[in-house]
Amino acid sequence: MNASSAPTDWPAFAESLGAIPTELDRALVRQKSRDFYWYSPVLKQQLRGVSADIIVAPRDEADVIAVVRECFARRIPITPRGAGTGNYGQAMPLHGGVVLDLIGLNTLHPILDGVLRVGAGAKLGEIEARCKPLGWELRMFPSTRRTATIGGFVAGGSGGIGSINFGQMREAGTLLAARVVTMEAKPRVLRLRGAEVNRVHHAYGTNGIITELEIAMAPAQSWMDFVVAFDNFTRLAEFTDRVARADGIAKRLCTAVDSGAAAYLKPLQDKLRAGESAGIFLIAAQSSAPFEDALDRAGGRVVRRLTEAEIESTGAVPAYEFTWNHTTLHALKVDRDVTYLQSRFPGPDYLDLVARVAEHYGDEVPMHLEFIRVDGEVACAALPLVRYTTEARLRAIIADFERRGITVFDPHTYVLEDGGMKQTDPEQLAFKRHADPLGLLNPGKMRGWDEQSSPA
Amino acid sequence: MNASSAPTDWPAFAESLGAIPTELDRALVRQKSRDFYWYSPVLKQQLRGVSADIIVAPRDEADVIAVVRECFARRIPITPRGAGTGNYGQAMPLHGGVVLDLIGLNTLHPILDGVLRVGAGAKLGEIEARCKPLGWELRMFPSTRRTATIGGFVAGGSGGIGSINFGQMREAGTLLAARVVTMEAKPRVLRLRGAEVNRVHHAYGTNGIITELEIAMAPAQSWMDFVVAFDNFTRLAEFTDRVARADGIAKRLCTAVDSGAAAYLKPLQDKLRAGESAGIFLIAAQSSAPFEDALDRAGGRVVRRLTEAEIESTGAVPAYEFTWNHTTLHALKVDRDVTYLQSRFPGPDYLDLVARVAEHYGDEVPMHLEFIRVDGEVACAALPLVRYTTEARLRAIIADFERRGITVFDPHTYVLEDGGMKQTDPEQLAFKRHADPLGLLNPGKMRGWDEQSSPA
Repeated sequence: MNASSAPTDWPAFAESLGAIPTELDRALVRQKSRDFYWYSPVLKQQLRGVSADIIVAPRDEADVIAVVRECFARRIPITPRGAGTGNYGQAMPLHGGVVLDLIGLNTLHPILDGVLRVGAGAKLGEIEARCKPLGWELRMFPSTRRTATIGGFVAGGSGGIGSINFGQMREAGTLLAARVVTMEAKPRVLRLRGAEVNRVHHAYGTNGIITELEIAMAPAQSWMDFVVAFDNFTRLAEFTDRVARADGIAKRLCTAVDSGAAAYLKPLQDKLRAGESAGIFLIAAQSSAPFEDALDRAGGRVVRRLTEAEIESTGAVPAYEFTWNHTTLHALKVDRDVTYLQSRFPGPDYLDLVARVAEHYGDEVPMHLEFIRVDGEVACAALPLVRYTTEARLRAIIADFERRGITVFDPHTYVLEDGGMKQTDPEQLAFKRHADPLGLLNPGKMRGWDEQSSPA
Repeated sequence: MNASSAPTDWPAFAESLGAIPTELDRALVRQKSRDFYWYSPVLKQQLRGVSADIIVAPRDEADVIAVVRECFARRIPITPRGAGTGNYGQAMPLHGGVVLDLIGLNTLHPILDGVLRVGAGAKLGEIEARCKPLGWELRMFPSTRRTATIGGFVAGGSGGIGSINFGQMREAGTLLAARVVTMEAKPRVLRLRGAEVNRVHHAYGTNGIITELEIAMAPAQSWMDFVVAFDNFTRLAEFTDRVARADGIAKRLCTAVDSGAAAYLKPLQDKLRAGESAGIFLIAAQSSAPFEDALDRAGGRVVRRLTEAEIESTGAVPAYEFTWNHTTLHALKVDRDVTYLQSRFPGPDYLDLVARVAEHYGDEVPMHLEFIRVDGEVACAALPLVRYTTEARLRAIIADFERRGITVFDPHTYVLEDGGMKQTDPEQLAFKRHADPLGLLNPGKMRGWDEQSSPA
């Protein structure tokens, strides 16, 4: 990275941005320099002191271009940020400089044939709420839907609620186009379309600033929010898998957590009995009867059944906020010594392996399964909790998972490649050379860039 | 069957039905006693002379009950019928008597949360047309959508266009409830719900008269009608399979026919080049760009691309009328010596077996694949054409398919069990004992009934 050698006069820098809103208050700057990195005891150590020098909040793409121009001239790094709901330190500015708060870019354009053009900073909850009356809803979203932005989800996430129908975001057909501002003396606005969008998807904003997206929406349905209980986790896992595979039952979420993890879901404690495992589902209203029939046959019971309107009117915690990374969040609220893993069990006989792992680790690794689609087939993702003792023990568990054929996506690293594919995506790296030649965007996150000789 | 020994005076019988419409004209009665049984040269021989004695067209369920009462008293068999678009002789009255034309029971009730309550005689095309503006469409339909009825589809069919998303009708969640009139002295109206509906689904009307259904609908989308061409069938099959598995590409139909079958699709002959295989797809408008991107990469070309509005305004043949049993129909229009098979290739490596079978039989068995979902996975159904010589040769081909592990659903039999599961569904048989104790409904079709000792 070619950071400027002379210390920057940040108030003067803020002045140079004219009417573009900025924030220099240390506490507020630190607050907007963080995400949920503290889910990981490893990252909690490593990223504790990280802070930007200034928060800049562009109001539109022209502002983004103006900020880039000023920053490039002074070699100031920029770390783009949505709502900061990631949990790998994706949007934490390792080298200080500017955190570019994009939530002002929140325009929703009219939906055309189920395609929404939307500013990167638009909140997912807002998109869902505004599109639903028009007959459309998000294809997928993270458990942080209430606050997360679409740009942050695309740049830092991979899938979530809805992935049981549409697979992950990187599959062709969901991310249709993106506008990206380059980090250059004369910033360009590039329009990526189709598979090109994967150059900036899940790249943590290291190789371009996403200002706008075109995403395929799903036709809206009325969803019933189900929490169900089984006294046996294996039978719950089988039932959840069966629902995930039931082509005639319309659904949006199929989650199974064992009793150890379910015990942390505080808002459900008056409804779950001790030792019960919990299944968490979003089922289309039209499919709730066949879903309950199947539940009866499998020996489970309905613990909570709410319509979307009932959730709204009662303020109940929506089911999806018990799933994906929110399961971990509920655990952390009770026990700061808990952390988690992200993994994928190999199919199609994953349930046997789930049972073996659950038995082997017992209460040290409370099990948490999320069923999704991968290449047209149902797959079993797992975000088990881990009762954390030492990093060495955590690494030993990861190594054991991998020995058993389970793919682990390490959530205890802020390095792009180490969390995912274990190798640099050559397209993402090539795009960074093109769009961020001096390596000023979110520096320190893309190993493939840092390992190459520094460019001229 | 306990048919009456004295010959029935049909005009007097018609008189006894009062205001319920009847038809005694021999030509018209014969016409309404037939379906597309002539797709099969075997059935064409066997069923040539089959005719009812009278057509009775109830206007509502009360009429159905009145007809049943009269028929039961005289031991007259009743064969319920929708539009007669089946092709196994499902609705052909082997023992004469009454053909009960149910198209008058065509009420559509308001859709509630995506569930439609509808009279058995409602036409599928009418359901689609009337529900679409309300935001709903059929989950699945046969290629005879323009004329077929929902009751006929449920009683005589199994799946079709849309099964790539929702699997087959028998999967839990699509057929939610049915009203069924029993064949007794005092006819009862039974309300079946959930899995109970499978007692009368695909039972050919042998064990009850379906008067009304509750079906789960799909949220409506705008569909693009694609015909694509490949000069190599194997590459087309691979591409079609890839689209079928692409979770991010919203679709409703994935069909591949080789050049031998494609040559029969007359409305496409000015667009397909000699020797080209044809892929036929319904792709959501929002997914047409990623679909075409994938097509480009696979080396195919778009032959025809139409919106639903363009099909309506130009009167073009909709893509789905080139698929499923309509592929066979197009062939038969050109060559009366062609027939077909219905089969399922075993997964997940079905494409290898498809290639081997295609190579082995060459032009004798032009290949036709339909991709569907079964238990949450993409499966490869096939309705290959067969250049018919003798029944012995046809049976030899079926036996060879079965030796290769391909499941064949014989379309050359009117016997319920022989076309499908090869065994009597005990629930269907038990229900017949209950709902048709004298065996007067569509007699001769359920082997399991005929093989048991005749009831008292």
